Amino acid sequence: MERSTEAAADVDRINTFFPLMPQLGMRWARTRPWEDLTIAVNAHLTTLTAALLRELTLGGGSWVVCAANVHTTDAGVVELLRAQGIEVVHGRDRDNHDRHLATIAHGPEFVADVGFELLGTLLSRSPDHIASVKGAVEITRTGINRLRAIRELPFGVVNINDSELKYNVENRHGVGEGLWPCLTDITGMHLSGRRVLIVGYGPVGQGVASYARARGASVEVVEIDPIRRLVANYDGFPTPSADEGLRRADIAVTVSGVPHAITVKQLRAVGSDLLLVNAGHGADEIDVTGLRAAAVRGDQLGPHCVRYQLRDKGPWLTVLGGGNPLNIVLNAGSPEPVLLHFALLGLTLEWLAKGSLPPGEVIVPRELQAEVARLALSARGHG
Amino acid sequence: MERSTEAAADVDRINTFFPLMPQLGMRWARTRPWEDLTIAVNAHLTTLTAALLRELTLGGGSWVVCAANVHTTDAGVVELLRAQGIEVVHGRDRDNHDRHLATIAHGPEFVADVGFELLGTLLSRSPDHIASVKGAVEITRTGINRLRAIRELPFGVVNINDSELKYNVENRHGVGEGLWPCLTDITGMHLSGRRVLIVGYGPVGQGVASYARARGASVEVVEIDPIRRLVANYDGFPTPSADEGLRRADIAVTVSGVPHAITVKQLRAVGSDLLLVNAGHGADEIDVTGLRAAAVRGDQLGPHCVRYQLRDKGPWLTVLGGGNPLNIVLNAGSPEPVLLHFALLGLTLEWLAKGSLPPGEVIVPRELQAEVARLALSARGHG
Amino acid sequence: MERSTEAAADVDRINTFFPLMPQLGMRWARTRPWEDLTIAVNAHLTTLTAALLRELTLGGGSWVVCAANVHTTDAGVVELLRAQGIEVVHGRDRDNHDRHLATIAHGPEFVADVGFELLGTLLSRSPDHIASVKGAVEITRTGINRLRAIRELPFGVVNINDSELKYNVENRHGVGEGLWPCLTDITGMHLSGRRVLIVGYGPVGQGVASYARARGASVEVVEIDPIRRLVANYDGFPTPSADEGLRRADIAVTVSGVPHAITVKQLRAVGSDLLLVNAGHGADEIDVTGLRAAAVRGDQLGPHCVRYQLRDKGPWLTVLGGGNPLNIVLNAGSPEPVLLHFALLGLTLEWLAKGSLPPGEVIVPRELQAEVARLALSARGHG
Amino acid sequence: MERSTEAAADVDRINTFFPLMPQLGMRWARTRPWEDLTIAVNAHLTTLTAALLRELTLGGGSWVVCAANVHTTDAGVVELLRAQGIEVVHGRDRDNHDRHLATIAHGPEFVADVGFELLGTLLSRSPDHIASVKGAVEITRTGINRLRAIRELPFGVVNINDSELKYNVENRHGVGEGLWPCLTDITGMHLSGRRVLIVGYGPVGQGVASYARARGASVEVVEIDPIRRLVANYDGFPTPSADEGLRRADIAVTVSGVPHAITVKQLRAVGSDLLLVNAGHGADEIDVTGLRAAAVRGDQLGPHCVRYQLRDKGPWLTVLGGGNPLNIVLNAGSPEPVLLHFALLGLTLEWLAKGSLPPGEVIVPRELQAEVARLALSARGHG
Repeated sequence: MERSTEAAADVDRINTFFPLMPQLGMRWARTRPWEDLTIAVNAHLTTLTAALLRELTLGGGSWVVCAANVHTTDAGVVELLRAQGIEVVHGRDRDNHDRHLATIAHGPEFVADVGFELLGTLLSRSPDHIASVKGAVEITRTGINRLRAIRELPFGVVNINDSELKYNVENRHGVGEGLWPCLTDITGMHLSGRRVLIVGYGPVGQGVASYARARGASVEVVEIDPIRRLVANYDGFPTPSADEGLRRADIAVTVSGVPHAITVKQLRAVGSDLLLVNAGHGADEIDVTGLRAAAVRGDQLGPHCVRYQLRDKGPWLTVLGGGNPLNIVLNAGSPEPVLLHFALLGLTLEWLAKGSLPPGEVIVPRELQAEVARLALSARGHG
Repeated sequence: MERSTEAAADVDRINTFFPLMPQLGMRWARTRPWEDLTIAVNAHLTTLTAALLRELTLGGGSWVVCAANVHTTDAGVVELLRAQGIEVVHGRDRDNHDRHLATIAHGPEFVADVGFELLGTLLSRSPDHIASVKGAVEITRTGINRLRAIRELPFGVVNINDSELKYNVENRHGVGEGLWPCLTDITGMHLSGRRVLIVGYGPVGQGVASYARARGASVEVVEIDPIRRLVANYDGFPTPSADEGLRRADIAVTVSGVPHAITVKQLRAVGSDLLLVNAGHGADEIDVTGLRAAAVRGDQLGPHCVRYQLRDKGPWLTVLGGGNPLNIVLNAGSPEPVLLHFALLGLTLEWLAKGSLPPGEVIVPRELQAEVARLALSARGHG
Repeated sequence: MERSTEAAADVDRINTFFPLMPQLGMRWARTRPWEDLTIAVNAHLTTLTAALLRELTLGGGSWVVCAANVHTTDAGVVELLRAQGIEVVHGRDRDNHDRHLATIAHGPEFVADVGFELLGTLLSRSPDHIASVKGAVEITRTGINRLRAIRELPFGVVNINDSELKYNVENRHGVGEGLWPCLTDITGMHLSGRRVLIVGYGPVGQGVASYARARGASVEVVEIDPIRRLVANYDGFPTPSADEGLRRADIAVTVSGVPHAITVKQLRAVGSDLLLVNAGHGADEIDVTGLRAAAVRGDQLGPHCVRYQLRDKGPWLTVLGGGNPLNIVLNAGSPEPVLLHFALLGLTLEWLAKGSLPPGEVIVPRELQAEVARLALSARGHG
Repeated sequence: MERSTEAAADVDRINTFFPLMPQLGMRWARTRPWEDLTIAVNAHLTTLTAALLRELTLGGGSWVVCAANVHTTDAGVVELLRAQGIEVVHGRDRDNHDRHLATIAHGPEFVADVGFELLGTLLSRSPDHIASVKGAVEITRTGINRLRAIRELPFGVVNINDSELKYNVENRHGVGEGLWPCLTDITGMHLSGRRVLIVGYGPVGQGVASYARARGASVEVVEIDPIRRLVANYDGFPTPSADEGLRRADIAVTVSGVPHAITVKQLRAVGSDLLLVNAGHGADEIDVTGLRAAAVRGDQLGPHCVRYQLRDKGPWLTVLGGGNPLNIVLNAGSPEPVLLHFALLGLTLEWLAKGSLPPGEVIVPRELQAEVARLALSARGHG
C-alpha cells in the first residue's frame, strides 16, 4: 500500500495548488449526475487520471477503468483506484483487446476513450454491447481520425480534442513549458545563446519555440506549409530550409506530427555536434532506427541519452529519450494544462448523462469549455 | 504635382524594403489577367493603396477607384493614380452614394469593396448594373457582417477578412507593433515598468498585449469571455475585473470591438492619473463623448492629446487621438501586414478573373493565402 | 514667438507625463540654492535643456547658457530661454571659442559642461577667470577623457557620466527603446523575424540588442572582448565573428565606440542586401566615407536613407542617417532617461553651491543619484 | 564503488556537453604547473568539484581536499576523488576545525578556500604553517567580508568573487534559470499569469526576476535602495512597497542577502494564499523560525513543502525547502555558470604558481577572466 499512499499524496499536492478537480468533485457529490449509470473509462493510469477519477466517482454510478497502455500504468495509481472502490482492468498478462472486452462486459452507458481504442473494439468485436451505449467522449487527435474513418457511428461521440482550450492552452503552454528543463537536467546544457531548430510550427511547435526563446535560445523554425512558415517568421523566427537550419543548429526538436521529419540523410550532412529531441506525436519523427543502424558508434551517456557517430571523427548526434516525446518520457512540466483537459472530459460526461446525444461526432460545446475556464481561473486565484 | 511625387517616393521606398507588390506586378504585366475587363475598387486612398493599384493596373483592364472616405483620402495619392491613367472618383462635394453611383456607372465585372459600401449601393440603388458583376471581394469584418445580412447575394463574394493571414499576422503583428511608439511620441512616457490594462483579448488584443509586454510594461487583461480570459492568463497576464484593473492601471487600451468598453462610470472610480487609448474598431470603445460632457475641465496638451478631470483635484484622464484608433490616426507602424492583405486582394481578383464564382459568400481559398505567404517570405529574404 | 510657444508646449507636455523637473523646480524656488551666484551652462539647446533650465532658474542666480553646437540649436528653445530672462550665447556667426569666451566673460562660479569644451577654453585661453570658478560638472564620456588628460585641475569637477543611473538606465533603456521604431519609420520594415547584428556589447549595445529581440528580431552580437562576448552569449545571443555575422544579417547596428567597426572591406564580402545603422558615439563607426567613395552607385531613397552598390548587380547596402547616431538624428524615443541625467546635473549644481569641492575629479556621490531615483519613481507613480 | 561510478558518469556527461574543464586538463597535463607543490582545497564535495579536481590533478602536485560541509558532501564524490589518488579530509565524526587542521598539516603552499574558513583556522590556530603559504584564493562573498576584517594578511589572497564573470553570468544566469522549474516540480504550479514578488534586486534578484518574467509570470520587485528600485522599474517591473507587494503576490522570492527580509508581521497581513521561497544567501531571509512558532497549523505536503496557517481559516503560507536557498537544496539548473567559476579558480591557482603575490587582497586579474571566457565560448561552440 506504500505506493498508493505516495500516489494519493501526489494527487493531494496537485489539488492543493490547483484545486480545479476538487471544485468539480464537490459539485458532483451534491448533484450525483451518474447515479445508477455505468461508465467505462479507457485511460493512461497516471497520477492525473487518479486525480480525475477520485472526483468523478463522487458523482455516483459504477466506474470501470481500463488501462490504455501497460507501459504507462502506475502501480500506485492502480492500488489507489481500487482502494476507492473503482473496478480497474489492467495487467501485463492481457493483451489490449482482452482488456477492452473485459471492460465492455460491464455494459457501460457511457464511454470515455483515448485513441478510439476501446470504442474500436466495442464496434468491431462486441456488437451486443453497442445498443446500451448512449454516448462517448474521445480526447485525442488519433482517436478523432479513427472515428471519422467509420461510416456510421451508432451513437454520439463528443470530440474534446478540438477544443479551444486544448489548442490555446494545452498545446501552447503544456509541452514547451516542461520540455526545456528536461534538456538541462539530462545534459547540463544552459539554453541561453544556443542555436535551436524547431521542426514544425503547429500549436505545439509554437509553444516549444516560444518557451525556447524565453529561456534565451536563438530559435529558428522549419515548416513546410508556407502560411505557417510566414506566421513563424512574423512571430520572430528565421525560417530556413531544413538542411540549412540543421547545419547551424546546436539542438533540433521535432514537433511535426509526421514520421521522419529528420532523416538519416539529413543527419549525414550535419557539420557539428547536434542534440536531437522529439516533442511531437509519434516515436519516429526523428529516424532513430535508421540512425542506430547507420551509426559507426553509439555510447549510452546516461538514462535517456545516447550519442551516435555516423562516421569516424564525425560530429556527435545525441538522441534524448530514444526519440520518444521527451516531456512524456520524463513526465515533465506543470500538470495544469492536462487537468484542464480532464476537467473538460468530466464536464462532458456530466453533460452526456443529462441528455440524449444523436449519433455522430460533435465538437465539445463552447459552454462546457467556458465552464472549465471559469473554474480554472478560480483555481488560479484569478476568478 | 509635388504631392504626387512624394507619394510615389513613399511607394518606391516601401517596395524597396519589402518587394511583395512589385513581384506581383511583374507577373501580372506578363499574364495580363484583367485584359478587357472593368474592375471597381472602393478603398481608402492611402500610399499603400497606391502601391497596390500601381501593380494591379500592369495586369490590363480598366480600373475605377472610389475613395472610401473623404477624410482618409491623400491628395498626393489621387494625383499619383490619375497620373498612372486610373479613373479616380473622390471629392468632398459628393456624398458617399454619389461616389458609389459614379463608380458603378462604369459597369464593372468585378468589385473590390471595403465595408460592403459600394456593393450595398449597387444592390439597393443600381439594380441595372448587378447583372454584369461576375464576382466581388470584401476585406473587412464590418463588410462581412453586412453581406451576411443580405438574403440572396446575386453574385459570389470572396471574404478575405477571415483569412489565416489576417488572423495570425495582420491582427497580431500589425496593430501592437505600431501602437506603442505612438504613445511615447505623444506623451514622452517610457513604457518600461508602467501598468498597462488591455481591454479585450481577441487576436488584436493579443498582439497589443504582447507588444506592450515586450516593451517592458506590466500588462493585465480584461476580457469577458472566460475561455479567452483563461488563455490570456496562461499567456502571462493577470486577468482582474475591469474595475480592479482600471484602479491600478497607468494606461488602458481598448481592443474589444464593442462600444463603451470603458464607461464614464468606471472612469469616475479611477483613483490616479490614467492614459486612455483605443486601438479597436470603432471610435466609441472609450465613451469619450460621455467623458467630455461630464468633465469639469479639459485641456488640449497637443495634437491628439486632451486631459480631462471629472472632479476638482481628481485624477487626470488623458485621451489620445480623441478615442479613434490611435495607430490609424497616426498611420503608425510597418506597412508589411497591410500589404500582405492587399496582395491577397490582388491574387483574389486574379483568381476571380480566371473562373466563374457561384453566388454567395466564399472564404478566400487557402492556396491563395499560401501564395501570398511564399511571396512575402521571399520579399523578406526568407524564401 | 510662435516657435518659442511650441517649445514651451513641448516642455509642458513632457513635464505633465513625467513631472521630475517640476518637482525639483518647486524645491529650488523654495530654497534658492544659487542666489547671488553666476552659473555657466554649455549645452545642446534642445527642448529637454529648456525643461532643465526653466527649473534651475527658479533657484535664483544668474544663468548664462552657451550653445554647444550650432547644428543642434533649436531656435524655439533660444527664444523660450530668452523670454525667461536667461542669457543665451549662440549664433552661427561665432565660432566655438568666441561663444565660450563670451560665456566665460560673465565670471561664473560654477560651470556645467558637455565634452569639456567650455572648460577647455577657460583653462587654455582665459586664465583670468579660473580663480573665480569654485566647481564644475561634466556629463559626457568624451569630456571625462579630456579632463583626465589635464595634469592639474585648478578646481573640482564632478563626473556625472560614470553614475549608476547612466550605466543602468540611460545606456540600457535610452538608445535601444527609441532606435528600432526609427528603422520602421524610414524603411517600413517589420523587425519580426529579421536577422540583426549588433556590433559592440557595452551597456548601450546590451540595450539595443535586448530591445531588438523584444521586437521579434533574431539577434546576434559581435564583440571583441571575450568577457563581454561570453556575457552576450549567456544573455541569449549567438556571437559569431564579424565576417560571419555580417554575411547572414539583414540589419547591422554599430554601438562599439570605435571608428570603422564596419569597414568597406567587410562590406565587399556581404552576400545579400544589408541595412546599416549607427547608434554609437561617433559618426564613423561605419566607414560611410569609404563606402561612398568605393560605391558604383548611390541612390537617395528619402531623407536619412541612401542605398549603395559596391559592384554592378551586387547587394544593396543601405545607410540610414548618413552613419550618424540615428536615434539622435531623429530625436527618437522617450525623454525620460535624458531627463534623469539632467536632474542629476541639477542636483549636482545644488550640491556644489552648498560646499567647497577640492580640486580634481570626483564621481557624482551615490546619495545624489539616490535622490534622483526617488524623485523619478515618484514621477512615474511608483514612489 | 557503485556511487563513485555514478559520480564519474555525471562528470563525464557534464564534460561531454560543456567541455570547459577537459580543455584545461589537457593543458595542465602538458604544462604541469603544480609539480612539486602542495595545494589545499576547501570545497563542497559535489559532482562539480569532482569535475574540477580531476583536471587540476593532471597538472601535478599534491592535492589535499577538505570537505567544507558534511551536509553537502556527496559520498560518491569522496570515493571518486580517492580513487584518483587525492587525499580527502572529511567525516561526520570530526568538527570543522579538526578537518581544517588535518588539511593544514599537509603544509600547503597554496590554498583555495570557501568562506575563508580553512584560512581562518590557519591564521588563528596554526601559526606554524603560515610561513609556507605563498598565496590563496577565496571564492565567496562571505569569505571576502571575513578576510577584509583581518588587519594584516600575511600572504596574498585572490578574490575571485568580485569577477565580472560572477556578476554577469553566474549571478544573473545561474540561480534564476534553475529556480523556477523547482517550483513547478514541487507544487505543480504553472508560472504563467501568476503574480510573483521578488524581494531584492541585486544581480541575483535581476536574474530571478527576468527568468520569472520569461516563464510568463507577472513580476513585481521590492527593493530598499532607490537606485536599484528605479533600475528595476526601467527593467520592466512595478516596484511597490513590501506590504503592498505581498498583499497581491501569489509567490514571493527573497534574494536580498539580509535576514528577515520577510517578517512574520508582514505575513500576518497577507490576504490570500502565498508561496514563499528563498533564493538568497542565508536560510533566514524569510523568518521561517518565527512563522513556525506563530503558526496555528503546519502540514507537510511532501519533501521541501510545508504549509502553515497563522490563524484559523486564514490564508495558507507555503514554504519550500524550509527557507534554505531552493536552487541549492534541489541542486537545480545548469552547471555551466558554476563551472565557469571553478575554471577561474583553476586558472588562478595556475597563475599563483607562476609568480609571487604580495600580501593582501587582489581582485582576480581581468586577463584570467578573459581566458575563461574564451575557453567557455569554445566549449559552447561559439569560439
